Amino acid sequence: MASVGTPDPNSAWLSDDELAMYRRRMPVLYVEAVPVRVDGLGVVTEVGLLMRANSEDEITRTIVSGRVMYGETLRDALFRHLENDLGPMAFPQLPASPVPFSVAEYFPLPGLTPYMDSRQHAVSLAYIVPVTGTCDPRQDALELTWFTPEEAASPRIVSEMEGGRGTLLRAALASAGVLP
Amino acid sequence: MASVGTPDPNSAWLSDDELAMYRRRMPVLYVEAVPVRVDGLGVVTEVGLLMRANSEDEITRTIVSGRVMYGETLRDALFRHLENDLGPMAFPQLPASPVPFSVAEYFPLPGLTPYMDSRQHAVSLAYIVPVTGTCDPRQDALELTWFTPEEAASPRIVSEMEGGRGTLLRAALASAGVLP
Amino acid sequence: MASVGTPDPNSAWLSDDELAMYRRRMPVLYVEAVPVRVDGLGVVTEVGLLMRANSEDEITRTIVSGRVMYGETLRDALFRHLENDLGPMAFPQLPASPVPFSVAEYFPLPGLTPYMDSRQHAVSLAYIVPVTGTCDPRQDALELTWFTPEEAASPRIVSEMEGGRGTLLRAALASAGVLP
Amino acid sequence: MASVGTPDPNSAWLSDDELAMYRRRMPVLYVEAVPVRVDGLGVVTEVGLLMRANSEDEITRTIVSGRVMYGETLRDALFRHLENDLGPMAFPQLPASPVPFSVAEYFPLPGLTPYMDSRQHAVSLAYIVPVTGTCDPRQDALELTWFTPEEAASPRIVSEMEGGRGTLLRAALASAGVLP
Repeated sequence: MASVGTPDPNSAWLSDDELAMYRRRMPVLYVEAVPVRVDGLGVVTEVGLLMRANSEDEITRTIVSGRVMYGETLRDALFRHLENDLGPMAFPQLPASPVPFSVAEYFPLPGLTPYMDSRQHAVSLAYIVPVTGTCDPRQDALELTWFTPEEAASPRIVSEMEGGRGTLLRAALASAGVLP
Repeated sequence: MASVGTPDPNSAWLSDDELAMYRRRMPVLYVEAVPVRVDGLGVVTEVGLLMRANSEDEITRTIVSGRVMYGETLRDALFRHLENDLGPMAFPQLPASPVPFSVAEYFPLPGLTPYMDSRQHAVSLAYIVPVTGTCDPRQDALELTWFTPEEAASPRIVSEMEGGRGTLLRAALASAGVLP
Repeated sequence: MASVGTPDPNSAWLSDDELAMYRRRMPVLYVEAVPVRVDGLGVVTEVGLLMRANSEDEITRTIVSGRVMYGETLRDALFRHLENDLGPMAFPQLPASPVPFSVAEYFPLPGLTPYMDSRQHAVSLAYIVPVTGTCDPRQDALELTWFTPEEAASPRIVSEMEGGRGTLLRAALASAGVLP
Repeated sequence: MASVGTPDPNSAWLSDDELAMYRRRMPVLYVEAVPVRVDGLGVVTEVGLLMRANSEDEITRTIVSGRVMYGETLRDALFRHLENDLGPMAFPQLPASPVPFSVAEYFPLPGLTPYMDSRQHAVSLAYIVPVTGTCDPRQDALELTWFTPEEAASPRIVSEMEGGRGTLLRAALASAGVLP
């Protein structure tokens, strides 16, 4: 996920070789966040998706996603990746409960779950995170686009999401009560 | 919901007139259950939908649904409606947690939520309930049909479900991690 | 709950006699909110409890609580009762998900559940709600007091809470990961 | 957790040295299960706790706990550790939803969270699992004892639980609606 999702600027202490080795031996823990806009009553009105070029130079969409570092709490990891992907002025509101709306299991080979990551076996705790400020994605993200829940759940957008995250996106909408 | 869903055999003490009056003055509390078959690891493999003729003699599909009576616990109500709709040999496994996977708000007029019930304002706590025995729906239900999660989430089945419950069904599949 | 909790200024159309009658015949739907302060990472740092005199003139503590009106969404009811109890400048952040952290079943007689309400059978959907503004309880609430999670979970505070809501408060802290 | 919790008989391919190295560089993913007995309506009536001697030869209590292996689904890991700790005739009913009731973050140093594991940074997804059969713990577990929810939540039992799992146990009881 890091190559196309959230780069880990702090991970220099773990060499690329080391990380590559771990990824073949252990499930790697991730956090993911679906950025949303909410109205005054908390209803999700818009969903923010990141548009990126993946390693095959195809345009794909994704959500905020990144690895949990050794010694780092889930909340710290979530905040770090939100800031990396949405910029320092997004003002994300992390949920009071640490229980994710879904747990996504990514495997190197397809078929075992809806999720796939050719680099690794990753297990991701996924959260819905309202953002109240201005999102300014880093340069490696081409664009952050806001969609209505209906648009976000459409087959076209779902099919553009990498690694099966269209399923995760629909689960996010369902948990917020706005899946069409 | 009672007319096409789960009749309340115990409700004789509340006359039809009284119930009709309450339904115009107060939100009415319901419980709903999505019956499922699970494999040995708890994965949902099939979803059971009730096929009924609604008041317009159209064939529609629904889930187990019924009112909570005065003095009755949610679990008692859930068990009573499961037994009414699936028969005494269904052996439902009620969840350890009383927290529903979703809360559905039915209003007499469409548009406010995905859910609608022309008779009343009803608020329903919805649960996924594995059943391990043999389902034998009462005569007012024409048929109980088992679908794979993929079939259950398909536009055709979703469109056949009454009162917007296709949305609730998809939310159930999402919460179980089997929404396609 | 209304007498000591959240008054319903809009309920004039439902006479006291009518409401009293419904309360003996139907479960009454409530929403409840545990107001909290959170830090920049979403961790609950303080819990707000309302101190009131109950109908026996004893000092008791409670949370935001009130009835859902006919035709009113859960979010509207939640917002209305939060505003009534905490004032117009509390700026509550209603959760993106409509699924409560717990469902409390209040019965007129004790023993069936941890919760009791001598006036009625009430079923309450309970939410944790971060507030970011200034709380200014109405006159019928003597005081809003902020407690640390440790203080809020202490036997003394739990025992001061009316209707068994100390149990609900502990469940709120557990769901936020801050129950000691 | 493995040394005092659930041994991983399949982990021979990962040498002790390798695992020790990973544990200093990456958060390690765990699953944990609170075994419970439920009545016909799904209410938790008893909680099963494992009594073991820890590495200091003190008697401590714990729950089912173990590492997720590379390539293994969460459900497979959960089932494997339940079978290891409770024997092949426990007949655990894994939940339909893969969302845990809580996420426990164990750190080598105390204070950051309620949970501590001197060997590693571990992140555990915790589930309530009803068991319907006969539990026959392996020899390294001295005893499986069933407690009522009241007993399990008592300060004495909570204080006997290793790594801060008394907090996790209380959260389990709260999520099942049976925390006193």
